[in-house]
Amino acid sequence: MTDSYTPPTVWTWEQGNGGEFASINRPIAGPTHDKDLPVGIHPLQLYSLATPNGVKVTVLLEELLAAGHADAEYDAWLINISEGDQFGSGFVDVNPNSKIPALMDRSTTPPTRIFESGAILLYLAEKHGAFVTDAKDRPEMLSWLFWQMGSAPYLGGGFGHFYAYAPEKWQYPVDRFAMETKRQLDVLNRHLADNEWMAGGVYTIADMAIWAWYGQLVLGRLYSAAEFLDVASYTHVVDWAERIDARSAVQRGRMVNRAFGEPEMQLHERHDASDFETKTQDKLDAAE
Amino acid sequence: MTDSYTPPTVWTWEQGNGGEFASINRPIAGPTHDKDLPVGIHPLQLYSLATPNGVKVTVLLEELLAAGHADAEYDAWLINISEGDQFGSGFVDVNPNSKIPALMDRSTTPPTRIFESGAILLYLAEKHGAFVTDAKDRPEMLSWLFWQMGSAPYLGGGFGHFYAYAPEKWQYPVDRFAMETKRQLDVLNRHLADNEWMAGGVYTIADMAIWAWYGQLVLGRLYSAAEFLDVASYTHVVDWAERIDARSAVQRGRMVNRAFGEPEMQLHERHDASDFETKTQDKLDAAE
Repeated sequence: MTDSYTPPTVWTWEQGNGGEFASINRPIAGPTHDKDLPVGIHPLQLYSLATPNGVKVTVLLEELLAAGHADAEYDAWLINISEGDQFGSGFVDVNPNSKIPALMDRSTTPPTRIFESGAILLYLAEKHGAFVTDAKDRPEMLSWLFWQMGSAPYLGGGFGHFYAYAPEKWQYPVDRFAMETKRQLDVLNRHLADNEWMAGGVYTIADMAIWAWYGQLVLGRLYSAAEFLDVASYTHVVDWAERIDARSAVQRGRMVNRAFGEPEMQLHERHDASDFETKTQDKLDAAE
Repeated sequence: MTDSYTPPTVWTWEQGNGGEFASINRPIAGPTHDKDLPVGIHPLQLYSLATPNGVKVTVLLEELLAAGHADAEYDAWLINISEGDQFGSGFVDVNPNSKIPALMDRSTTPPTRIFESGAILLYLAEKHGAFVTDAKDRPEMLSWLFWQMGSAPYLGGGFGHFYAYAPEKWQYPVDRFAMETKRQLDVLNRHLADNEWMAGGVYTIADMAIWAWYGQLVLGRLYSAAEFLDVASYTHVVDWAERIDARSAVQRGRMVNRAFGEPEMQLHERHDASDFETKTQDKLDAAE
């Protein structure tokens, strides 16, 4: 990329230097190997990893359980994307797009597959009638939920990639995507200046979805970019993000399927509420 | 971007060369000027432009009207994004994200705003109970609808920008986003090899949303990239796209709020079904 180039007539795949995660990017879909997915005992089987898109769903599941929805019990299985688990035949059957998170609802006959984090949030929240607005405010909730889905690729696949993961730093794409990310943060900041929550005056899946990306960005957890993007200046986003972050269900949701970062935060699989207690003890031990 | 660079500690906005459309990209949100939006006589007031995201909604509205849903009558007003209409105060009140399409439903008291094309599609389709699946297949429909929203930024804001609009062509971002676009086309091609429509065996908003981007891409309408991406090789996507493209409601939907391309396709505003007849006469005249 050091010089402008003339694209070929037809693009071809040269497996070369695509930066971090290059090995998992391919121009073709479908499975690369046969591998069944494990199945646990609960109605919901989640196949995921604690990236922002993964955390959205585990936060909602923990919120549902904390609110007394016992039928939201779930087994969470780790999909290690660096090792290509998302290209196993069983995973592709659940999500032909080979991305986490993917969910099987085995409370239906036959079981129901659902993929894309926003679709999973809407499906689960509506199924349980929780963490949604009333009907009057549903259009506002849907608007912000879809806003997150269409906006975050500029933050993750754009800014995050070119600022943190690309093989070199180039000014043009960093500028392009930093500008858009800051615009998105300002959209949120203006909205949250006048609203406690994203929609309908209540905490909903729109908050969870947006918190997972933009909330965690202003909390300094993504791409070591807090200072570069001056996230502290988006004060209403910071206040809102801290309020969500303090919830115990959110803290649990962040731990599920985490296979990177601080060891005491890593609950690779989750099959029972008691699984967190072991990790809590690890955390206490680590703090001693 | 001719050399690798060291990002500053804190990003700052230097208004420079951002390629085509650079003038409409900003790191801040909110209105730039006071301007009320026009309001017509119908229940639905659409503020849009015939980009892929805009066309999704006008296609659904024309399909609803063709299917006899008279309460889907709408006024469609042109938002010229090159002239900054999306930054007018009235538009920002409807969509604080300053992107088309944006909708006001004036059949409710007070009127309901809704933004993000995916949210508008789901809102309108569910309101009229049309172009959705039955409940059993709704998770599949939602999965594909959200898939489109999360995937197309890699096609539009990624591939389209770096292949067609950036001030120069650089190999790294073109390769990155061409590879992802081809993977997405292959995801669709494998699905459509076994399915006539995206979800539930019926034509739904998931088809309309995906057709607007990936269908029009394989029909050669986006970024002059048909040969570069070898779109003809995705034969199942091409067949499906042609089937949708042949629908008269789709042909009408493509014309609404079009302010670029062939003059006889441009119906800048739409207020009545008869508005298309004038354009049809223009087309016949042009063909003579």
